[in-house]
Amino acid sequence: MFQDFEDPKDTKNTAQHVKLLRRTMAENGLDAFIVPREDAFQGEYVPPANERLKWLTGFGGSAGVAVVTTRQAAVFVDGRYILQAPDQVDTNIFEIVPIAETGPLKWLEKKMRKNQRIGLDPKLHTLDFAGAVEKLAQRKSLDIDYLADNPIDRIWVDRPAMPETQVTAHPDRLAGRTSFDKRRDIGRQLAEADQSAMLVTQPENIAWLLNIRGNDVPHTPFALSFGILRAGGRFDWFIDPARIDTKTRQHIGDNVHIHASDKISAALRKLKGKVRLEPETTPLWFAAHVKGTEIVHGEDLCTAAKACKTKTEIKGAKAAHLRDGAALCRFLCWLDAYGRTGKISEIDAARKAEAFRAETGKLRDLSFDTISGSGPNGAIVHYRVTHATNRRLRPGDLYLIDSGGQYADGTTDVTRTVLIEGRPPPKGAIDAFTRVLRGHIALAAARFPTGTNGMQLDTLARAPLWAAGQDFDHGTGHGVGSYLSVHEGPQRISKGGMVAMAPGMIVSNEPGYYATGRFGIRIENLQYVRAAKNAGDKHRDMLEFEALTLAPIDRRLIDKSALTADENLWLNNYHAEVLGKVKPLVDMRTAKWLEKACRPIR
Amino acid sequence: MFQDFEDPKDTKNTAQHVKLLRRTMAENGLDAFIVPREDAFQGEYVPPANERLKWLTGFGGSAGVAVVTTRQAAVFVDGRYILQAPDQVDTNIFEIVPIAETGPLKWLEKKMRKNQRIGLDPKLHTLDFAGAVEKLAQRKSLDIDYLADNPIDRIWVDRPAMPETQVTAHPDRLAGRTSFDKRRDIGRQLAEADQSAMLVTQPENIAWLLNIRGNDVPHTPFALSFGILRAGGRFDWFIDPARIDTKTRQHIGDNVHIHASDKISAALRKLKGKVRLEPETTPLWFAAHVKGTEIVHGEDLCTAAKACKTKTEIKGAKAAHLRDGAALCRFLCWLDAYGRTGKISEIDAARKAEAFRAETGKLRDLSFDTISGSGPNGAIVHYRVTHATNRRLRPGDLYLIDSGGQYADGTTDVTRTVLIEGRPPPKGAIDAFTRVLRGHIALAAARFPTGTNGMQLDTLARAPLWAAGQDFDHGTGHGVGSYLSVHEGPQRISKGGMVAMAPGMIVSNEPGYYATGRFGIRIENLQYVRAAKNAGDKHRDMLEFEALTLAPIDRRLIDKSALTADENLWLNNYHAEVLGKVKPLVDMRTAKWLEKACRPIR
Repeated sequence: MFQDFEDPKDTKNTAQHVKLLRRTMAENGLDAFIVPREDAFQGEYVPPANERLKWLTGFGGSAGVAVVTTRQAAVFVDGRYILQAPDQVDTNIFEIVPIAETGPLKWLEKKMRKNQRIGLDPKLHTLDFAGAVEKLAQRKSLDIDYLADNPIDRIWVDRPAMPETQVTAHPDRLAGRTSFDKRRDIGRQLAEADQSAMLVTQPENIAWLLNIRGNDVPHTPFALSFGILRAGGRFDWFIDPARIDTKTRQHIGDNVHIHASDKISAALRKLKGKVRLEPETTPLWFAAHVKGTEIVHGEDLCTAAKACKTKTEIKGAKAAHLRDGAALCRFLCWLDAYGRTGKISEIDAARKAEAFRAETGKLRDLSFDTISGSGPNGAIVHYRVTHATNRRLRPGDLYLIDSGGQYADGTTDVTRTVLIEGRPPPKGAIDAFTRVLRGHIALAAARFPTGTNGMQLDTLARAPLWAAGQDFDHGTGHGVGSYLSVHEGPQRISKGGMVAMAPGMIVSNEPGYYATGRFGIRIENLQYVRAAKNAGDKHRDMLEFEALTLAPIDRRLIDKSALTADENLWLNNYHAEVLGKVKPLVDMRTAKWLEKACRPIR
Repeated sequence: MFQDFEDPKDTKNTAQHVKLLRRTMAENGLDAFIVPREDAFQGEYVPPANERLKWLTGFGGSAGVAVVTTRQAAVFVDGRYILQAPDQVDTNIFEIVPIAETGPLKWLEKKMRKNQRIGLDPKLHTLDFAGAVEKLAQRKSLDIDYLADNPIDRIWVDRPAMPETQVTAHPDRLAGRTSFDKRRDIGRQLAEADQSAMLVTQPENIAWLLNIRGNDVPHTPFALSFGILRAGGRFDWFIDPARIDTKTRQHIGDNVHIHASDKISAALRKLKGKVRLEPETTPLWFAAHVKGTEIVHGEDLCTAAKACKTKTEIKGAKAAHLRDGAALCRFLCWLDAYGRTGKISEIDAARKAEAFRAETGKLRDLSFDTISGSGPNGAIVHYRVTHATNRRLRPGDLYLIDSGGQYADGTTDVTRTVLIEGRPPPKGAIDAFTRVLRGHIALAAARFPTGTNGMQLDTLARAPLWAAGQDFDHGTGHGVGSYLSVHEGPQRISKGGMVAMAPGMIVSNEPGYYATGRFGIRIENLQYVRAAKNAGDKHRDMLEFEALTLAPIDRRLIDKSALTADENLWLNNYHAEVLGKVKPLVDMRTAKWLEKACRPIR
């Protein structure tokens, strides 16, 4: 199994850890120290060796930051974790602060006095964040101590080793472009901007650029490493050479030079000309090591190139989604038969879903820990079931499962919300489900001019909920990698998505509705952007989406009378496509269930 | 009549004017000189005395800029004026450049050589624009000469005088707040931001702040003047004191000090503390005169306050729209009877519309020159009919009229597109009209959470057109003043509208579709933002619009089968409201016509 359901670690050691940290702070003359969840790679997943926030505070969420002063301490978390954090964190030591209301710097601004010192580990904080700390320090006349070593690493006695998994080739027949070609192309963009080199500090961008994968963290198949791309296309890769075998080295191609990880500081110091780096994701440490030459702030050019999938990658995504869809349909059929028995728990269901995916024989990992929530648990947007929260499915429950698989040819991410039969659904559930579905359809069926961004499109998915005085407090869609991170930029469909959609981008479409303490609804497909044949004004370049995900949407939760004719047609067409494609791949029983689940409405 | 239909002035003198300008430039050692359409007030309308661009180039459009070098010259215009500009401008002298492709600075960057000098009149260019020129100068090693006098003013022998119309009181019973109260409130905001003073350089903000009006330019009832608001609420107003009579002075209230216009430079030099100014609208000249103290960039606080109308102003807007709607319905009834005769021209129609408005006895001005376009002329988005372009309405034409009135209690702006009966409409017109209407309804009927901005809402008005591969190349909605400018910020509903809607804001809702050379369609109502009663999730604050404009939408151009049940219901409700409110105010013949025009569909 790729997922465990352990309860968060108990917090008995955190008092001791904080005491040790404060002692080290005192020895170093620090009045405050900031402990982010991120490591130097600024990714969503960090290896156990870099779980400093969890070690110090007990907090195991995927985003957060702690600040410790000589007398006070706080953990800052977003809306998803406000309820969960106090279960994991000793609230006698740490105040739990909603980060949207008070960020760590606003908090520090109140607590710090003139001439006090803040400690920062420059490897863990991006240029943008460090810049904000510097502004605070100026305003309040504080000192900043940029630490050569992280104090936590000195006192963490049983700190695990960093992962050093074998790097594997991601074949050109799946990537659709050679690494050499990608490097030459991005190198050329640097040359055109008169920039000599670009730092590549995000492991997923290195994985994309070199057509390699790794296994250093859960769910995202990359190798933690840094690199420098030169305008000529040369790439200097800082990673233990023992992790790359001869075959993989050959696959990567010419003009890639592998150096031990600790050689990067010397390499940074030697850079000449204009050096490009992305201030939102690059730790301050890197910029501090670029000496005597000009630094230019700009997005990592790999990010936009990686977002627009090649035809080969889209072909792979379709194959992965067909395979994944068949597994999911088998699961949904099983769930429909056994969910109502009262014997199936959320953990059972998550295990079963993973088992069906594993039976494809192609599953490399889950794309993320499955969200398996029934009844009130479904209303917790980022619910992760544990033995402590586990709940049996009951007739009349809504059950929400958000899950995905990592396959060599593609990454999947799908959410379905179904009725556990035997009793009617909760009051309001059918109305809300229908509105969420109408939002999903409006976005799925949208045509829009080239240049349209995610903020503009986001409205389509929300308008039906807005009309009823409802909304959902998360984005409508995120970018998805190709056998890489299930969350990738630069595009997103959300109230703040300013990047334009472009052909080849894969995005999720996942409006939802959450009735706290009662039920949660989310309907999520992945879809990719393609050029639309324009039957209208020829001079306008229009784009549209094509759905990748293949699984029925629960007809029992739809108020047919609230659908427009166009919405009804979209749904029937989608279900016909699901049936036509998935049925040949599943067992008889699932096939029969699928026929019923995909029946046209009206 | 408030509108004339004269052809643009001939261009016979421009050769002479350019020659004179080049001689003056040579005397001053200038290699290039920039002539914007704007004057120091940066508004949409400029008095004849400040029509420097028109005097130099012949170009009479409402936006544009010219650049003259020793040997070359160009006029930069946006998409609206690309076709019109060559009729007005001598293209042997001036190149006509689409500003979206090449701005004046990009053009200059190509033409200028090292150490050459650009002349700028610092009174005419905003800080933002001047900053861009300075960057260009740095990049290309150019010199900038900030001129104490505009060379054009020296050579323009018959330059008209500046207008000095009488300033009138805008009564508190229409404004809903006293000037004293507004000044105290904005002054308090300054104090809270630790700012000592704010420059108010936009005449509409002075008109709002002081509850006064004027008549210095067409269509926007303000007095051209500048002011300085202090943190304590004191206002220093730089305007000829002879323009303000004792009664008006009393109306404005205490703590307003009137100085002759030429005293402002001395007053600016004396400012102390942090001085706030808006770099997008404040000419460089102002900042250059603030000496030895700190300048803080920030929006003019009047703009946001002015945008959110008081209850009294909304009441006034409703009264103005009812009166205006009755006049417009009389016009539409007349048009329906006589448009088909083949005898009515676009100018006749525009005159008639103005006459019906004038017959209300309350019309102070038009809010802008009426756009009266039939057939192919309707497809020209900012069409202004002249004797040269005038065209008779013919059966089967679509006729588009975009017009509005200035009344003491409110400003109106409405567009209707109607079929001239007798022949069927052009192919595609009914489909397009129905899509435009569906977009209009989607926006008019939208509910949305507090915080939603114009970019998010814009999508609703476009989605039906996008679905057919169509779009329109203008914004969906602009803010509208209260007996002030028909275009005001900060909010707009457009692909770039980043300001959130707030209760009391008046915005237009005007999607369109333009088939070049064939027909144009636009359906425009004004609507205001109000809190929505939330029957959904109580913790969400929702907003909605209420339509102000009252005039039927042409049923003959609607494909009823393409409307959803909700859209149909909206239309029938709207027409019932129009009939119920307007019918009591019109003659028998119009009342009968109105009954037919407002019949429910289905």
